[in-house]
Amino acid sequence: MSNQPIIVCKFGGSSLASASQIRKAESIINANPNRRYVINSAPGKRDGGDQKITDLLYLCHEHASRGLPFEEVFSVIASRFQGIADELELQLDLSAELSAIKATIAGHGQTGQPADYAASRGEYLNGKIMAALLGWRFIDAAGVIFFNAKGDLDNQRSYDALAEKLAGQPAVIPGFYGSNPDGRIKTFSRGGSDITGSIVARALHAESYENWTDVPGLFITDPRVVPGAYSIEIITYQELRELSYSGAAVLHEDAVFPVREAGIPVRIRDTNNPEHPGTVIVPRHHPEAKKSYLITGIAGRKDFTVIQIEKPMMNKEIGFGRRVLQVLEDHEVSFEHMPSGIDTLSVVMAASQISNKLDVILQELAIAVQPESISVTDKMALLTVVGRGMAHYPGLAARALAALGQQNINVRMIDSGCSQMNLIVGVDVERFEDAVRAIYAAFVHDGETMHGY
Amino acid sequence: MSNQPIIVCKFGGSSLASASQIRKAESIINANPNRRYVINSAPGKRDGGDQKITDLLYLCHEHASRGLPFEEVFSVIASRFQGIADELELQLDLSAELSAIKATIAGHGQTGQPADYAASRGEYLNGKIMAALLGWRFIDAAGVIFFNAKGDLDNQRSYDALAEKLAGQPAVIPGFYGSNPDGRIKTFSRGGSDITGSIVARALHAESYENWTDVPGLFITDPRVVPGAYSIEIITYQELRELSYSGAAVLHEDAVFPVREAGIPVRIRDTNNPEHPGTVIVPRHHPEAKKSYLITGIAGRKDFTVIQIEKPMMNKEIGFGRRVLQVLEDHEVSFEHMPSGIDTLSVVMAASQISNKLDVILQELAIAVQPESISVTDKMALLTVVGRGMAHYPGLAARALAALGQQNINVRMIDSGCSQMNLIVGVDVERFEDAVRAIYAAFVHDGETMHGY
Repeated sequence: MSNQPIIVCKFGGSSLASASQIRKAESIINANPNRRYVINSAPGKRDGGDQKITDLLYLCHEHASRGLPFEEVFSVIASRFQGIADELELQLDLSAELSAIKATIAGHGQTGQPADYAASRGEYLNGKIMAALLGWRFIDAAGVIFFNAKGDLDNQRSYDALAEKLAGQPAVIPGFYGSNPDGRIKTFSRGGSDITGSIVARALHAESYENWTDVPGLFITDPRVVPGAYSIEIITYQELRELSYSGAAVLHEDAVFPVREAGIPVRIRDTNNPEHPGTVIVPRHHPEAKKSYLITGIAGRKDFTVIQIEKPMMNKEIGFGRRVLQVLEDHEVSFEHMPSGIDTLSVVMAASQISNKLDVILQELAIAVQPESISVTDKMALLTVVGRGMAHYPGLAARALAALGQQNINVRMIDSGCSQMNLIVGVDVERFEDAVRAIYAAFVHDGETMHGY
Repeated sequence: MSNQPIIVCKFGGSSLASASQIRKAESIINANPNRRYVINSAPGKRDGGDQKITDLLYLCHEHASRGLPFEEVFSVIASRFQGIADELELQLDLSAELSAIKATIAGHGQTGQPADYAASRGEYLNGKIMAALLGWRFIDAAGVIFFNAKGDLDNQRSYDALAEKLAGQPAVIPGFYGSNPDGRIKTFSRGGSDITGSIVARALHAESYENWTDVPGLFITDPRVVPGAYSIEIITYQELRELSYSGAAVLHEDAVFPVREAGIPVRIRDTNNPEHPGTVIVPRHHPEAKKSYLITGIAGRKDFTVIQIEKPMMNKEIGFGRRVLQVLEDHEVSFEHMPSGIDTLSVVMAASQISNKLDVILQELAIAVQPESISVTDKMALLTVVGRGMAHYPGLAARALAALGQQNINVRMIDSGCSQMNLIVGVDVERFEDAVRAIYAAFVHDGETMHGY
């Protein structure tokens, strides 16, 4: 095995939706000889009115399981794949593969394969096409990605198989699926090709894991709230988790875990704009993480509920906070924050955690801590401003809060812990979008968050 | 009983330290016919080298209890009082009173009176002088302020006795002491005349309780940190408690309780500058509380310790926070704040709470929540910015934090709960004074905190 650095590339559904998109992927792969392992999705939508192949495959399975014919749907799938192969001028006849798949979905002559089998064939067939196009090996994910009897990924068995079977020559590995101990196909949840890519990168000790998609990286904040929001240049895994937890749509947590553990950077890139550097996700101590921005991202979620408890001298009661949390635990409610004043203690939790238990919890709290008053406020949104630079630039929190003040947005809660990496503010839910825009505008100018102060 | 409003006035030791000071008190009392009940302290120091009468009285008792003569000390006391009476040109011969007191302290012919008896005689004698000067009744506190067998104030018995004996004519009531169920004298803790005044105000349903001292009210912040700090114009009881808890030297909590409960405003005034409005302490819903300032006061304490716990996915563990607090409770440690991030939870507590238990608590926390890492930071100071106006002026917290940022003071923690009445920030203990000054300068200009924005 050579010491040449390995880049594992995963291409998403929109990046492989048509022959022309696949040509873009091809030229990206060929632009860097280290890109030697490709994980592919199934063809996604080519335009707004299009269908995802995976949706059509599920539909075939549903027909078959009810004993209904699915000729028509399947022929759409078949002609899409053959059309791509032909347009790419590949000497690739998929008819035998397609017939076998159709027969298996129909349940002819095979032990019954689950819906997962049907769903996975989009990646399988697209992988065949990619391998033919690149002239690389096709490695069926069923032989390298393994689940255990409980349905969880069998990490070690998968890593070992991948390391063994992928060593040496470049290869294409279809994403999204693997196999059960009984040999039947099992998929990850939707979007699971990201996970396959991460596992492959980890197994091969890749230098980086490139995740090619149709956006130029992760956005600093939701572009539906701030149209034209810029993307993040560098983010740490820890920051990613904070943003993700706080509502940002980012990589699946299961996709982050394998590479995070191994310290492998993930690069989110745009297939349609390969010159754009996109976003790189790095470990905290990675050299790239030293390039520090004022803030990294802004995320948030609505629908939090606050229980506010007032009782003079509560500070003198040892165990007061513990008794409050005990009541919540008894009802399996997890809380987000517990800000406290001298005679007040507030517990902030997702409304969904508490909605149908609120009355009984209030009653039990009244008994447990005998407060002077107890009140409930709903419709609070929590906004999280994440930035590893916060620890180094005093005044960042001030700038964020000043931006809210200028928009006359009342801050109902502030929590900034000793991790010094984020600022969490509570605002009325109606002002949530205004608050996100105000903070974005305060920190992001001319295409990037400012460096230094 | 007339419906004329009653003002209860308490004069502190420095306000009654000499004949000339007493003349100032007299003219204050006479300036408003509603000032009909006076609580007096013992004469305090007239200048830096002077002695407080109460200290000398304790000294007499100490001599007596060891069988030593105390002629010399007592003669200083005697001549101080007779000198005041003579200088005020009162036809008041205190020699019989003084002889009786001296004999009692010496233990002649009386059932042994405690040190409290000796200590209380300064107020007793000064009360006699005040009553003679004003031409008012002298009401011995031993007959109206009662303690129960446990040594606590017998509220109802005291209120009833005060209401009955004080009704009608004006009166002078010496502060600081009352009597035990066995009739012997018992004092409050030092400074306890404030408590007597509060109890009298409460018993008489006074319109207000004036506490005359030698400073123009409560200071916005410690004048030792900010020389020339202005005094607070209006503060609510709740704000007072927050400032007091956070380290500001204000009225004794026991002195606040009776009037707070009854909603009676307390006015802290300067005997040497009676034109100065001083500070008024009012209930939250009092009309004067509506006059809102940006901030009311800044206080703080040093020597906090932070335990920071990191564990990925701690939010998914229901009961995580409760288990942390359970460990602290098992060791009878009370905490101040518990700021939390996504994967981090910090517990802030007074260093004194935890210093000698830290190792065992860390060990038990490691077992209880199995963190990825756990670290301890000491030398954090907590600064509290209190202001009922904070809820109405978004951006106040921002201004405070910006002031810290401009001085390059790193904020290690922020907690602003849903009571919206304070902002608590953690800073390095070495920057504590700088931080207080920075925030003071950001909010206080030209003699008052700004009204409005």
